[in-house]
Amino acid sequence: MKLAIDTSQSSGSIALWDKGKTAWSSCFDIRITHSETLMPQIDAAMKFCGYKPSDIETLLVTSGPGSFTGLRIGLATAKGMAYALKIPLLTYTSLHLYALQRYHCGKDILVALDAKMHEVYAALYNEKLEELQPPQVCTQQDILSWKPRECYLIQKGVKSLESLTEENGLTFISVPDLPISAAGLFLLEEIFPQPEVYDLDYVANLEPNYLREHTAQIKGKK
Amino acid sequence: MKLAIDTSQSSGSIALWDKGKTAWSSCFDIRITHSETLMPQIDAAMKFCGYKPSDIETLLVTSGPGSFTGLRIGLATAKGMAYALKIPLLTYTSLHLYALQRYHCGKDILVALDAKMHEVYAALYNEKLEELQPPQVCTQQDILSWKPRECYLIQKGVKSLESLTEENGLTFISVPDLPISAAGLFLLEEIFPQPEVYDLDYVANLEPNYLREHTAQIKGKK
Repeated sequence: MKLAIDTSQSSGSIALWDKGKTAWSSCFDIRITHSETLMPQIDAAMKFCGYKPSDIETLLVTSGPGSFTGLRIGLATAKGMAYALKIPLLTYTSLHLYALQRYHCGKDILVALDAKMHEVYAALYNEKLEELQPPQVCTQQDILSWKPRECYLIQKGVKSLESLTEENGLTFISVPDLPISAAGLFLLEEIFPQPEVYDLDYVANLEPNYLREHTAQIKGKK
Repeated sequence: MKLAIDTSQSSGSIALWDKGKTAWSSCFDIRITHSETLMPQIDAAMKFCGYKPSDIETLLVTSGPGSFTGLRIGLATAKGMAYALKIPLLTYTSLHLYALQRYHCGKDILVALDAKMHEVYAALYNEKLEELQPPQVCTQQDILSWKPRECYLIQKGVKSLESLTEENGLTFISVPDLPISAAGLFLLEEIFPQPEVYDLDYVANLEPNYLREHTAQIKGKK
């Protein structure tokens, strides 16, 4: 049985996978913080489905980018469980999970999440979910410089990107704002498999993929 | 606040909508019957989000086609709540909810659910979710007679449709089998609005849209 966690946004999601299918999936508005909701949600889902913690064989979690606090809570929870149960912990990019909604839909996929400070976390994928522009923190002008072709636009907390299209001859096809389930991580694992092995060093050293701080560090070194 | 329910398949889903967004969405494998899981799930979600029953202003439910028992339980629950709270009850076709995954994706959408007895519940929509073939119980040969263009194929419990494509020069683009949330009903309501009024007669007389029995009745009359 597998457990997937996404706490990268202001809504959280968990999902359970067993016998080749999703046994549980929930998405919930966390209101204040993931710290009060994540473990009770996991506990309730496990009980509903009749699992005990030792049934979990693999953990999947989004490592970022997104809410700093959210990522820390999700990753800390997953690391703690991986260490206690000695099970593999696989990480995926939150933008990749969001892009999955338009997998094999014939066009590129632009994902943009609010990064505050007039910036966005953005990435561009082709229809096979291969990276055309890796996840990065950037301005809207940076996105223009990618010269995206007609593409799907998946955005959370970002409204102004659509105004770019009229001024710059870009065509963005809006994607409805449906809840995004952590169950997508099971599908991402099918598309982009990772070795399912327990690696204490990897678990111990795993850190959220904030992007923004990483950029700051690079700038600092320059 | 709005509550959406989908019990048309062997997995159930409920969702809560408040202040312009989905506050809760869950999809759960029901194992035996929706009768044991639906009300506890609604209760848990309402408590998690801090709502009481009288906060519900509108109900949305899938009326079929799908599991006969599932539809009866979902619709009976929704009707009971609508009657008790004197609130509007809106129904949508389950196939429409499933098709929503490929809304505005540039191609027609074929939805096929297992109807047992070597038949399927199927419908064909264009990318705007307008009906090209209304929901019906039919054979695979019937679907061939629709002469579908290259289209997305959303199927649950049906495996053999893909074999049609090779023999008959059809192109179906498979859609990943992600959990389908009742939260889609909120979006369907945006696209296809219905008057939000409480109508006792409508609620009292509402019946599941089984399709199969309807077909049998028509044949009987012939």
